[in-house]
Amino acid sequence: MFTGLSAFPLTPLTEKGIDEKSFVRLMERLVAAGVDSIGALGSTGSYAYLKHSERDRVARLAVEHAGGIPVMVSIGSVRTSDVLHLAEDAQRAGVSAVLLAPVSYQKLTSDEVFTLYETVTRHLSVPLCVYDNPGTTNFDFTDELYVRIAQLPHVASIKIPGLSADPVTTRNRLDELRLLVPSHVTLGAAGDLAAATVLTQGGDVWYSVIAGLFPEIPLAITRAAQNGDAQTALALSARLEPLWALFRQHGSLRVVAAAAEILGIVSAPCLPLPLQSLSGDARQHLISVLETLFQN
Amino acid sequence: MFTGLSAFPLTPLTEKGIDEKSFVRLMERLVAAGVDSIGALGSTGSYAYLKHSERDRVARLAVEHAGGIPVMVSIGSVRTSDVLHLAEDAQRAGVSAVLLAPVSYQKLTSDEVFTLYETVTRHLSVPLCVYDNPGTTNFDFTDELYVRIAQLPHVASIKIPGLSADPVTTRNRLDELRLLVPSHVTLGAAGDLAAATVLTQGGDVWYSVIAGLFPEIPLAITRAAQNGDAQTALALSARLEPLWALFRQHGSLRVVAAAAEILGIVSAPCLPLPLQSLSGDARQHLISVLETLFQN
Repeated sequence: MFTGLSAFPLTPLTEKGIDEKSFVRLMERLVAAGVDSIGALGSTGSYAYLKHSERDRVARLAVEHAGGIPVMVSIGSVRTSDVLHLAEDAQRAGVSAVLLAPVSYQKLTSDEVFTLYETVTRHLSVPLCVYDNPGTTNFDFTDELYVRIAQLPHVASIKIPGLSADPVTTRNRLDELRLLVPSHVTLGAAGDLAAATVLTQGGDVWYSVIAGLFPEIPLAITRAAQNGDAQTALALSARLEPLWALFRQHGSLRVVAAAAEILGIVSAPCLPLPLQSLSGDARQHLISVLETLFQN
Repeated sequence: MFTGLSAFPLTPLTEKGIDEKSFVRLMERLVAAGVDSIGALGSTGSYAYLKHSERDRVARLAVEHAGGIPVMVSIGSVRTSDVLHLAEDAQRAGVSAVLLAPVSYQKLTSDEVFTLYETVTRHLSVPLCVYDNPGTTNFDFTDELYVRIAQLPHVASIKIPGLSADPVTTRNRLDELRLLVPSHVTLGAAGDLAAATVLTQGGDVWYSVIAGLFPEIPLAITRAAQNGDAQTALALSARLEPLWALFRQHGSLRVVAAAAEILGIVSAPCLPLPLQSLSGDARQHLISVLETLFQN
């Protein structure tokens, strides 16, 4: 399940809690499009803001409405004991894999992060994707730590941030990582902006924010890359540049949440406060970008 | 209560949860020393790792065992609705003030952080200390944001990180901040290493990690500074340089936790995993530092 396109849907909220109807609607879009896997409760799914009971409920809804597509959920939390509880809950909910970032409050050391992964993988029966996301965890993986963690049982993929849109740089970096981690561990793009480049330069999987809301174009990009048609993949990604520009400026979550609100797929506001989706001029600009991209 | 020495004790844990006996022992040390206020459940008190029920219990224990010394607790959480619940719990527990950092998973915008403080202060009846801690929150306050937040009701102090040990730089920065915030808002040192300089250059309060375990020397530093005896304050702080060096290398929490374990004031390990206190050579070095500083 750690190849191709993995789509990360929002977990829409209302004042009363999880907006289950809208979440199911998002799942149905992904099933209809036929993405390769679904990353529910990723960063885009606001896992870090939800109670355990809410995360359990969303995991169950995701599995129930995935139409047989493998579902992965994040089990990240600042405390190891909570991560272990979340892993149990997720496996009982029937997920096919779990995603784990070294979520932190105090900045973690490499040894602390290794021990976290070692402890958690000892208690798992499903595969685990290592979620390297320094923007949210304030932790930078070294290659040495990749090597140590990739050798642990159940580790099946790494979600790699900051890969370049420059093909040569990305190819070299992926070649370098291939030599470091076991061959059964796939390498995935964590950022949408360079994902077409990553997939056409040997990356295995795209862990995608945009595909959680608009799966069609990312799927076309992924299939083109898988078929060796780099030109089409890159051209399709370039068409999305107005969205990528908004991602760079506001963060992908705020943009995708605003887009879902604008299109009426979720009710507004759908993010957990203090997070706010786009407002004012930025929202107006997004409306015109969406019209150009998806309604012509 | 936002002047002088505010001591931040650990919240020691065992496998079963809060080590209440050891926490009370830590509180009793602070009461015996006569610190000016107690910051329970600060970063040193691992608030970000605890369940609401655990935080409520520690807040109640702190108030109960403070011997009349004002107690402040942190109400930080990634989600605004949780911060509001924690504020209610803390006030019901009888705290004299609350401490609020913009705890984040997704990197926050200035508007999101302002709205968080605006919302929370609207629901408060006790004073609030703004906790600026970019190392844990991944958020940098601008001076403009200090100005907006300092004007909100109940805001009484700012815990300022990164002040310099250079007297002129610190004096200039404090003078600059004085012009920006209302005169009733006190300015405090968030870092132990430069605190003596901050207090002798016009800072109002030292929010202190080391004082949570060893209150005597920090109290002597604070009293010297308050009496205009900068030389004594700085000389006493300089004596602690071997500890400050360990703080710089390992983070203050790991060092203080290890010191409390070594001295048998708490049982080992006392930190919530994945956090680990010092081990190996670093722990041995701390033992010799403690012997030199406190047992001769």
